[in-house]
Amino acid sequence: MTDGYQPSPLVYSFGQGRADGTSAMKETLGGKGAGLAEMTNLGISVPPGFTISASLCQTWIDTGAFPSRLNREIDLAMQRLEAETAKEFGGADHPLLVSVRSGAAVSMPGMMETILNLGLNDITVEGLAARSGNPAFAWDCYRRFVQMYASVVLEVPKAAFDVVHDEALAAHGVSRAIDLPTAALKTLVVRYKALAAERSIGEVPDEPLAQLYGAISAVFASWNTRRAIDYRRVHDIPDTLGTAVNIVTMVFGNLGEGSGTGVTFSRNPATGEATLYGEFLTNAQGEDVVSGARTPEPIAALRERMPSAYQELERMSRTLERHFRDVQDMEFTIENGQLYMLQTRRAQRTGQAAFRIACEMVTEELISEEEAVARIPPGALDQLLHPTIDPGAALDRLGSGLPASPGAASGLVTFDADDAAERARAGEAVILVRRETSPEDFHGMVASKAILTARGGMTSHAAVVARGMGKPCIAGATELDVDEAAGTITAGERTVRQGEWITIDGSTGIIYLGQADLLTPELDDNFHTLMGWADRIRPMKVRVNADTPADAHRGRDFGAEGIGLCRTEHMFFQGDRLLAVREMIIAETPEERQKALAKLLPMQRGDFESIFRAMEGYPVTIRLLDPPLHEFLPNDPGEQEALAEQLGRPIEAVRHAVNRLVEQNPMLGLRGCRLGIIHPEITRMQVRAIFEAACTVAGRKGRVQPEVMLPLVATVVEFRRQALVVREVAEEVFRERQLTVPYLLGTMIELPRAALTADEIAREAEFFSFGTNDLTQTTWGLSRDDSSQFLPYYLEHGIIDQDPFQTLDVAGVGRLVQMAAEAGRRTRADLKLGICGEHGGDPASIAFCETLKMNYVSCSPFRVPIARLAAAQAALAMRGTVDRTRATV
Amino acid sequence: MTDGYQPSPLVYSFGQGRADGTSAMKETLGGKGAGLAEMTNLGISVPPGFTISASLCQTWIDTGAFPSRLNREIDLAMQRLEAETAKEFGGADHPLLVSVRSGAAVSMPGMMETILNLGLNDITVEGLAARSGNPAFAWDCYRRFVQMYASVVLEVPKAAFDVVHDEALAAHGVSRAIDLPTAALKTLVVRYKALAAERSIGEVPDEPLAQLYGAISAVFASWNTRRAIDYRRVHDIPDTLGTAVNIVTMVFGNLGEGSGTGVTFSRNPATGEATLYGEFLTNAQGEDVVSGARTPEPIAALRERMPSAYQELERMSRTLERHFRDVQDMEFTIENGQLYMLQTRRAQRTGQAAFRIACEMVTEELISEEEAVARIPPGALDQLLHPTIDPGAALDRLGSGLPASPGAASGLVTFDADDAAERARAGEAVILVRRETSPEDFHGMVASKAILTARGGMTSHAAVVARGMGKPCIAGATELDVDEAAGTITAGERTVRQGEWITIDGSTGIIYLGQADLLTPELDDNFHTLMGWADRIRPMKVRVNADTPADAHRGRDFGAEGIGLCRTEHMFFQGDRLLAVREMIIAETPEERQKALAKLLPMQRGDFESIFRAMEGYPVTIRLLDPPLHEFLPNDPGEQEALAEQLGRPIEAVRHAVNRLVEQNPMLGLRGCRLGIIHPEITRMQVRAIFEAACTVAGRKGRVQPEVMLPLVATVVEFRRQALVVREVAEEVFRERQLTVPYLLGTMIELPRAALTADEIAREAEFFSFGTNDLTQTTWGLSRDDSSQFLPYYLEHGIIDQDPFQTLDVAGVGRLVQMAAEAGRRTRADLKLGICGEHGGDPASIAFCETLKMNYVSCSPFRVPIARLAAAQAALAMRGTVDRTRATV
Repeated sequence: MTDGYQPSPLVYSFGQGRADGTSAMKETLGGKGAGLAEMTNLGISVPPGFTISASLCQTWIDTGAFPSRLNREIDLAMQRLEAETAKEFGGADHPLLVSVRSGAAVSMPGMMETILNLGLNDITVEGLAARSGNPAFAWDCYRRFVQMYASVVLEVPKAAFDVVHDEALAAHGVSRAIDLPTAALKTLVVRYKALAAERSIGEVPDEPLAQLYGAISAVFASWNTRRAIDYRRVHDIPDTLGTAVNIVTMVFGNLGEGSGTGVTFSRNPATGEATLYGEFLTNAQGEDVVSGARTPEPIAALRERMPSAYQELERMSRTLERHFRDVQDMEFTIENGQLYMLQTRRAQRTGQAAFRIACEMVTEELISEEEAVARIPPGALDQLLHPTIDPGAALDRLGSGLPASPGAASGLVTFDADDAAERARAGEAVILVRRETSPEDFHGMVASKAILTARGGMTSHAAVVARGMGKPCIAGATELDVDEAAGTITAGERTVRQGEWITIDGSTGIIYLGQADLLTPELDDNFHTLMGWADRIRPMKVRVNADTPADAHRGRDFGAEGIGLCRTEHMFFQGDRLLAVREMIIAETPEERQKALAKLLPMQRGDFESIFRAMEGYPVTIRLLDPPLHEFLPNDPGEQEALAEQLGRPIEAVRHAVNRLVEQNPMLGLRGCRLGIIHPEITRMQVRAIFEAACTVAGRKGRVQPEVMLPLVATVVEFRRQALVVREVAEEVFRERQLTVPYLLGTMIELPRAALTADEIAREAEFFSFGTNDLTQTTWGLSRDDSSQFLPYYLEHGIIDQDPFQTLDVAGVGRLVQMAAEAGRRTRADLKLGICGEHGGDPASIAFCETLKMNYVSCSPFRVPIARLAAAQAALAMRGTVDRTRATV
Repeated sequence: MTDGYQPSPLVYSFGQGRADGTSAMKETLGGKGAGLAEMTNLGISVPPGFTISASLCQTWIDTGAFPSRLNREIDLAMQRLEAETAKEFGGADHPLLVSVRSGAAVSMPGMMETILNLGLNDITVEGLAARSGNPAFAWDCYRRFVQMYASVVLEVPKAAFDVVHDEALAAHGVSRAIDLPTAALKTLVVRYKALAAERSIGEVPDEPLAQLYGAISAVFASWNTRRAIDYRRVHDIPDTLGTAVNIVTMVFGNLGEGSGTGVTFSRNPATGEATLYGEFLTNAQGEDVVSGARTPEPIAALRERMPSAYQELERMSRTLERHFRDVQDMEFTIENGQLYMLQTRRAQRTGQAAFRIACEMVTEELISEEEAVARIPPGALDQLLHPTIDPGAALDRLGSGLPASPGAASGLVTFDADDAAERARAGEAVILVRRETSPEDFHGMVASKAILTARGGMTSHAAVVARGMGKPCIAGATELDVDEAAGTITAGERTVRQGEWITIDGSTGIIYLGQADLLTPELDDNFHTLMGWADRIRPMKVRVNADTPADAHRGRDFGAEGIGLCRTEHMFFQGDRLLAVREMIIAETPEERQKALAKLLPMQRGDFESIFRAMEGYPVTIRLLDPPLHEFLPNDPGEQEALAEQLGRPIEAVRHAVNRLVEQNPMLGLRGCRLGIIHPEITRMQVRAIFEAACTVAGRKGRVQPEVMLPLVATVVEFRRQALVVREVAEEVFRERQLTVPYLLGTMIELPRAALTADEIAREAEFFSFGTNDLTQTTWGLSRDDSSQFLPYYLEHGIIDQDPFQTLDVAGVGRLVQMAAEAGRRTRADLKLGICGEHGGDPASIAFCETLKMNYVSCSPFRVPIARLAAAQAALAMRGTVDRTRATV
């Protein structure tokens, strides 16, 4: 026996202005229990009670039993409650009634909610009736208890009780049970009990202690309901956390018109306005508000009805908000004019409210600018930046897919990129629907309001391009059968035809039939103020992935400080360029190829000029040609013939080129710097275009910072070979123009081998940009185009926690990134590091980049504000000055 | 000025039984110079001379000049030569003549060979004539010198001199220049000189010192001829090595019938027999032997003609062999009966000779068993294990490709697997010729003598399968246009049709027209003795990659100690299994799939039984189904229809399955353990087959060690999921059979992520088998099927030194392997480690495995002896007890 050992208590009491716990003990007490303890300590009027530690939850689940110590502690806590209230649990004269509620450290739907009025039986109900002088109230409380216990503990469906209940009301012509004659209420209790016994393997116990342990067990058991487990999976909440159990002395909102119950927010959670916001019901218990059986009144009405209770509520709201330094979501009950607070927690809020509240709290000197920044959930920005479906709209759901690019849009269904472009020119709103998209569909995607694909994942071609353009997109809608030839979408029994309206919500992944009203976002001053603070806090720069002058401008508008990835091949798909590109690919001699390249040169140069100008002197990272050449050639025999005619070449030449370039695994084939090494003339043309454009802009007193990036480097020798060409052409142009533009020459780190040999590569490369899309594909041996066959299964079955294409896989890919960052900087101390994959716009991945002290992250234009905010939050988390967890709850 | 500093000498003299250098100074003196120094030190009769350090070669190439110190050192060395020989360089009375030869540390064709008789001019020739009393000899020497100098230094083609020379012989009706009248020889010298001046920008200098410096410069310059550079590239010799220059006093084999010159080996290099072997010419200089103008006599004839010189040669040969402890390849000259040794070096030898010599030298106690093992070049085994083309055959070369699987074969050209199988059944020898092969061609490959493909690399499907079967294969023969539809191979102007004979040599990559005589290998006692020593030395086990009972038997015959990789899917392609496999894939319900799997179960079980029996208790690692399912389905519409009929299903079901399974990058798609996770019923069937077979064999007192291997694991959770199924089914079978068979459960490490998280995976996995084929593909982002578009270019242009699919890329892939091996063993000290990729049969890669102390390597049956030898050599190299470099020269 160790003599000084004191095990942690299992039960924490609160009441009489003193609590065993505090708000810091969320893990043990759960959010609700911690709030009750803290409110008690603050002197706020809270009914006394106690909380059973969440640490017991797992024990109960594993063993189905409680340690004997718990019984002793519960006995003591109940004795204390009896002493404080001068009531007796199970007492015939003055019975003590309690509520029992679950409450985990993280707010979580799906768990058992509440059992009220616990402690009532045929004997105690008479005591309550006598003491309150209100038998109808007492029997209504008993009725409610039996129904709640039967539903929650015995799992009898609530609907069964509703039938009996509604029959009784109808029989007596009343609309509320409380208005029933007492005898009818007694009969209801008897019928409820019989129903419970009949429809379950147990019954509602009479013994109050048996009621209490039954309720406690039910709370713990509710931790493992299907819905609770699913919720935890989705929100990444550990199963081992467990829930606490709160046992609180009943106060009654249903004692008459001087009583009531309600929910209020310390500020308006929809707009952020700094006034009480909420609703209440007179002569009611909490469940009446929740169930929606009666329509509550707005909280302002309480000011008229019970002015002193309202003032007290305002005072408590202010106290709690000042104390917790955040907007509170509170439950209260008024018992005969006396206000009791039953719960307080951090309030959820809309994106718009989040910004207003954060800014106003800074003005009120309640929180610092850093805290304001740390508090905005990055997801809130999605709401602010994209159209949403009017919540009032009546919608007919067709099916769902992956929420691949946020925002909502309505449009006419089209299955063909050319058709989409044509209708868009005619002023029609269209949504491009395809089994999957390919680069050839690009112009159709540009013309559409939104994109819907039946196949592909969150990082499929459609998804990536849509996010890049800020257009809504749903991908991998496998429930839909998209028949492009027939021009139909089939979902079960229903068919949508070409030219019919659909609406898609890219934030939720749901597809609706018909056209819906949309709400367009507005960015207000609060947004700009707060983003300004974020920008001052973050050391990491935020750049944009932009392939066109339009993207570049959009990126600047969203606050991008440069371009982190300019994919030159995207320019190749536009207009008459594609023809020249195809001519170059089909060329059989270097001379022919040179001729085609000469046509491309002025086009690329023009693009680069516009992009450099748009970026106003900020750095622009240009990646040289990356994709396999066959992506530029048509697969369709008809298009091949048309191309042969356009180029004035035999059809065999076109077919031969297509066949020659076919690859088993194009992802792992002739692409990236391999192309430039085999065909240095392509590199020469691109580099010449870059530096001619840079000289032109610089020559007119513009500032320009080109960064030339070599893709898919696996060995330092590849880098050296291409670097020779780049430097030679740059010097050539500088000599011709009599002007030197400083530039950097670096590489994508997108192959495991590049990461593993980063020390060598850093001897030559001046920057690394982590191409984490391809790095994830190769590290996992996982093609994102093909992953829809099993990645959804993996996510659903918990084989992986997160889609590695959305959130950087720190254990695998992240380890390579870290090795490369560290090795690279050991070789070259001033090596510039950035990330330009899809992960550059993902907050968790941005936080990882901050731990490596990267210079910048780069993402699609519409993710730039999110990245700015996430980068600031990551920096704050690293400094440890604010509670990071708050921003992501 | 530092007072004690002495720069390294640039010139190293030898002569009078004392040399400045030794045989240890190969880097400085080159092989030839080191040999001359060492022979001098051994008291062997060597003409005095000196060697100019190879360190000057790079200086000369970079600057085109010599440091002035060199001139002083050459002057001193020449003075010493004059003193020792009592002759004078450029002296009219008793002229000193020298030879000048190149000689790098590594023997290397393509560099300047020899200039003899340097120091002769119109004056010194008269001195030589007078002193020798043989004017014809003197003028013949002069003629030779002019011609050699003009050819080698002035780069005048030798053919030009041959014309003049042959005219002179014809005019005088003699067959050797030496038999010409002196006047005619003088005329020849004049005409040679004129020709040299006319055909070059220089002339042959008269001044002996100018001749000397010209020759030295020419030696250094020859280091950078195209041929020399190419040779270095192919043989991985650093460009910075440089060549030394040897200047040696002339001795004359052309002084009459008592003189001569020759080349001899201390043992027969073709058979290994321990007698002098070589040839000689009387009254000749070295170039006569080399040029082939006169036919030399076998060395045995020397015994008759000059018995004392022959005895002296035998004595010197023994001395040198005992000293160098290896067979010597020597050049000698006899001047008036006096024997001089001009060069000695390690002798090249055939595979058969290598074994005999090594074994006999152990018997003679000249070398240890370890040294014997270390000395066999692993490539020598290829010669011993595969048929070779009779060196006497007259062959008509058609073209060449990559030497993808060693050995030679002749056969009738066929372009179709079915046709190949049919003709083979009819007893015809066929060679399957395809653009590339796919698993559907497997039965045709089995039926063929050899395989030839126009596309694909050393690790293409054709190459891998051919090596696995030990059949000759040439892959990537891009010079050939293979038109399967037309049934023709076109190479330039020539066309080979279906049914015509070709011969291919898979060891050289050369394709010949017609049928050639082949030599079949025999394994003698020496082979078995030496391999026995190797087996005792190596700590690493050698296993075989075997998918069939036949392969397993073959592996055992070659000495494999288990199966490292049994690919269960290869069994699926055989006979009626394919139909059942297709039925399983096309199944639309679990029940249908179950039915198809039930058909496969007894077939797989039967295979495993035979394999377990063949391996006689050695461990058998069985990999569960790995390839994407679409590999098993026919792509051809006709075959799809036939399949639908066979299965009694609508054609749409077949087409639907084919379309559903199409992947953009099958290498990175639904395969490996992903299949088993999505379709656990497949895993169940395979595991049941394994353990039922194991129990059957074990039940009949057989020993059996199954090792179940999960493919393509990326995360430990995947492993856990599949491990549950494997363990459950194993227990099920053990219960049914009332018998427990111990087994291991492990995984392939073939994805970077698996290597990076090996510590976690090792918590569950009992062994790691490095699948370095796929690991190389993913680490490099390089599909081996598609790499033929650029990998050959990369190799040719020095962007990579070695094909990473042939020799493990230590810096990249090797780093991952090392990380995984170390992390895995930290987690689980007794983790079994092996390698089962193509690299398991590559000596350099095996050496890397030895550094990681792997438990075993596994390779295709025909590589097993090579792996046994290489593993022993790697162990010896790690111990540092023998000079490892000797084995690979």
